[in-house]
Amino acid sequence: MKLRFYNAQILTMENTEIFSGEVHTDGDTIIYVGKEKREDKFDREINLCGNLIMPSFKNAHTHSAMTFLRSYADDMPLNDWLFKQVFPMEDKLTPDDVYQLTKLAALEYFSGGTTAAFDMYFHPDRVIEAAVETGLRIVICGAVSGGNNQADYDSALSRLEDYHNRFNNMGPLVSFKMGFHAEYTTDISILKGIAELARKYKQPLYTHNSETANEVQGCIERHGKTPTALFEELGMFEYGGGGFHCVHMTDEDLDIFKRRGLWAVTNPCSNCKLASGIAPLDRMNAMGINLAIGTDGPASNNALDMFREMYLASVLQKVRENNAAAMPAEAVLKAAVSGGALAMGLTDCDILAEDKKADMMVIDMNRPNMQPVNNTVKNLVFAGTRDNVKMTVSGGVIVYEDGKFPALDAEKIYAEANKIIGEKRKAN
Amino acid sequence: MKLRFYNAQILTMENTEIFSGEVHTDGDTIIYVGKEKREDKFDREINLCGNLIMPSFKNAHTHSAMTFLRSYADDMPLNDWLFKQVFPMEDKLTPDDVYQLTKLAALEYFSGGTTAAFDMYFHPDRVIEAAVETGLRIVICGAVSGGNNQADYDSALSRLEDYHNRFNNMGPLVSFKMGFHAEYTTDISILKGIAELARKYKQPLYTHNSETANEVQGCIERHGKTPTALFEELGMFEYGGGGFHCVHMTDEDLDIFKRRGLWAVTNPCSNCKLASGIAPLDRMNAMGINLAIGTDGPASNNALDMFREMYLASVLQKVRENNAAAMPAEAVLKAAVSGGALAMGLTDCDILAEDKKADMMVIDMNRPNMQPVNNTVKNLVFAGTRDNVKMTVSGGVIVYEDGKFPALDAEKIYAEANKIIGEKRKAN
Repeated sequence: MKLRFYNAQILTMENTEIFSGEVHTDGDTIIYVGKEKREDKFDREINLCGNLIMPSFKNAHTHSAMTFLRSYADDMPLNDWLFKQVFPMEDKLTPDDVYQLTKLAALEYFSGGTTAAFDMYFHPDRVIEAAVETGLRIVICGAVSGGNNQADYDSALSRLEDYHNRFNNMGPLVSFKMGFHAEYTTDISILKGIAELARKYKQPLYTHNSETANEVQGCIERHGKTPTALFEELGMFEYGGGGFHCVHMTDEDLDIFKRRGLWAVTNPCSNCKLASGIAPLDRMNAMGINLAIGTDGPASNNALDMFREMYLASVLQKVRENNAAAMPAEAVLKAAVSGGALAMGLTDCDILAEDKKADMMVIDMNRPNMQPVNNTVKNLVFAGTRDNVKMTVSGGVIVYEDGKFPALDAEKIYAEANKIIGEKRKAN
Repeated sequence: MKLRFYNAQILTMENTEIFSGEVHTDGDTIIYVGKEKREDKFDREINLCGNLIMPSFKNAHTHSAMTFLRSYADDMPLNDWLFKQVFPMEDKLTPDDVYQLTKLAALEYFSGGTTAAFDMYFHPDRVIEAAVETGLRIVICGAVSGGNNQADYDSALSRLEDYHNRFNNMGPLVSFKMGFHAEYTTDISILKGIAELARKYKQPLYTHNSETANEVQGCIERHGKTPTALFEELGMFEYGGGGFHCVHMTDEDLDIFKRRGLWAVTNPCSNCKLASGIAPLDRMNAMGINLAIGTDGPASNNALDMFREMYLASVLQKVRENNAAAMPAEAVLKAAVSGGALAMGLTDCDILAEDKKADMMVIDMNRPNMQPVNNTVKNLVFAGTRDNVKMTVSGGVIVYEDGKFPALDAEKIYAEANKIIGEKRKAN
């Protein structure tokens, strides 16, 4: 499939300049980005009428299948939410449920301009199946441990190795990064084994890190140091990696992130809603720490909406630092787009350029919140919403256009999700 | 025009229960809300296919015409933004500009489910003209003083009285509430005169109140007390009223708000983005203080999006109070809908019921972020976006439907706004 997008405003994200021109794709690859009017043989030519084409969002931390718990239990203390509501319901999930619920997440990603998810959840084989079927680029993170049962926990290392070898060879939309759930759900012997595996395969390592003050305090009590310092001591970051959340970070933690080139993946909506805190993003940005943005799961957020994450990633810093100049829009947009791609190893999905993957979105400029056109980059972060996504292209395939999913039966996916939550509620 | 909405899920906001039924309107009034299938003669019968109909949002504090400065100057210290960017550009605005720019705001309100604005800006006659022409319900607040020039300032009292008498008699979509910009822009003699006028006409009074720590500190230096305490001492609240922002409130301030039944109108997005702080909403809510929500102007926000305000109104409280149970969704939705209406004196626009005004929105439930259907009220606050607004009805007229504005030429309004900002930029 060869596509031509013309009459476009183009934001490549190589920098934040916007220019008029064309983007051409062939299969899953971009073959031309430029100012010239170029005609050739295309399967479809799309007049963008001056709308903006840019790289799609990359959701750098999520638990997609948690869609079933969206707005299921809110406005309650964290421990009640987690232990009385989330865990008992997750225990009831079948692999088939995870497959169905990931498809619902894919619809939400596409309709909000997101084409890739760095996903950590149970039954990753079925997550992958849903992703490939819908056209979502998926990077599976780790082998979730400590969440379900002792058998799962014991087999964490062998599963991690198996996933690494299998998932990295499953085709263009699928890849895998080594990781684990968190320090507080993983025995020290397992942590050591994971570090060894990462070194054996020369792989980066990712995990939930310093999401809550309690988590950090617990780690200090157990190991005499913060999670980041412990992971560093265990030799986990020889080949890079990153942390999800990174809310409660010491100076030493930040130094380790900087020195190792680790990715701090921020989840501002979830961190607010669960009262975890506000990450020191502006400080990280000033230090030159690599930044990416994720939604976390839809049970805690409750949406998979990168526009909302971007807004909070900036404005929360302003109020945290008592400085309206903190965490400027350009840095946030970069984190949501190119940062996310690089954080999850998608080095071909970060910008619009020849030979890069055709993972893109078209922003409808003819909406009141995009007008007048003063500064489109600032406006995407401070006024943009999912409502502005006119089209989403994942791996060269149009997966969303003018409110519709050309190849997916959304109503059937909604019905399946409602059936699943209905059954779980009954069984609870 | 008689309209029938059937096959609806109905959320009246009298409470937060949702039931299946019908809503009928005649002219600008609701004539039936109920569970029965009722047929009659209608001009249009609309099958809502199970989508949700509910009262529209009421934006209880805004400066609509500031659309022209949306994303014009961001990520800079507050004083630079205000004195170097905003004020010089506002000085160049003509009455005609304000008329055009308010029309752009109306498009944004309608496309996000908002039908009424409590507006404070220059040239209110032209704001009203734009509102009536587009179908926006407008409540003009005060006679802005101290913003432009000495002549404006001196005539504040006579203008206030003139506006009160004229604007409250300009037809069904228009009304007026007495108010003034803020303590720090108004001389004490004028403040006393305003208090007297409010008592003369037995009217509530509204103003910017305790938006920044500096403002409160300055007031204490000038008058020995906080703005709220000063206003109370001046006898401004004999007939109620309210404050916009209310971020930095003392215990005494909160007691005055509670005792006088004042409306605290929160603007969480603007307060974050300008690094003003996080208002003590959860505490106000627990005290039973009347709450409403506004966007503030699009120069500081940068959108006019009540969904985003609702999200922040809840999640910022959770992180502020370190309690995930703080400021529950139900209280936030009430503030955004019924609270806003009552705050601006629109006592007929607060809920869906017979004889109330037909100011309503239809929420598209067939979007991924509204699925599965676990708890629609929680979900509207925690996952809802403008993308979910399928239809907006203002005063019985469909002003927005499926992405289009049936009676308005959006592209022409965008072009006018771009022309205005282009001219001002050149002149700057």
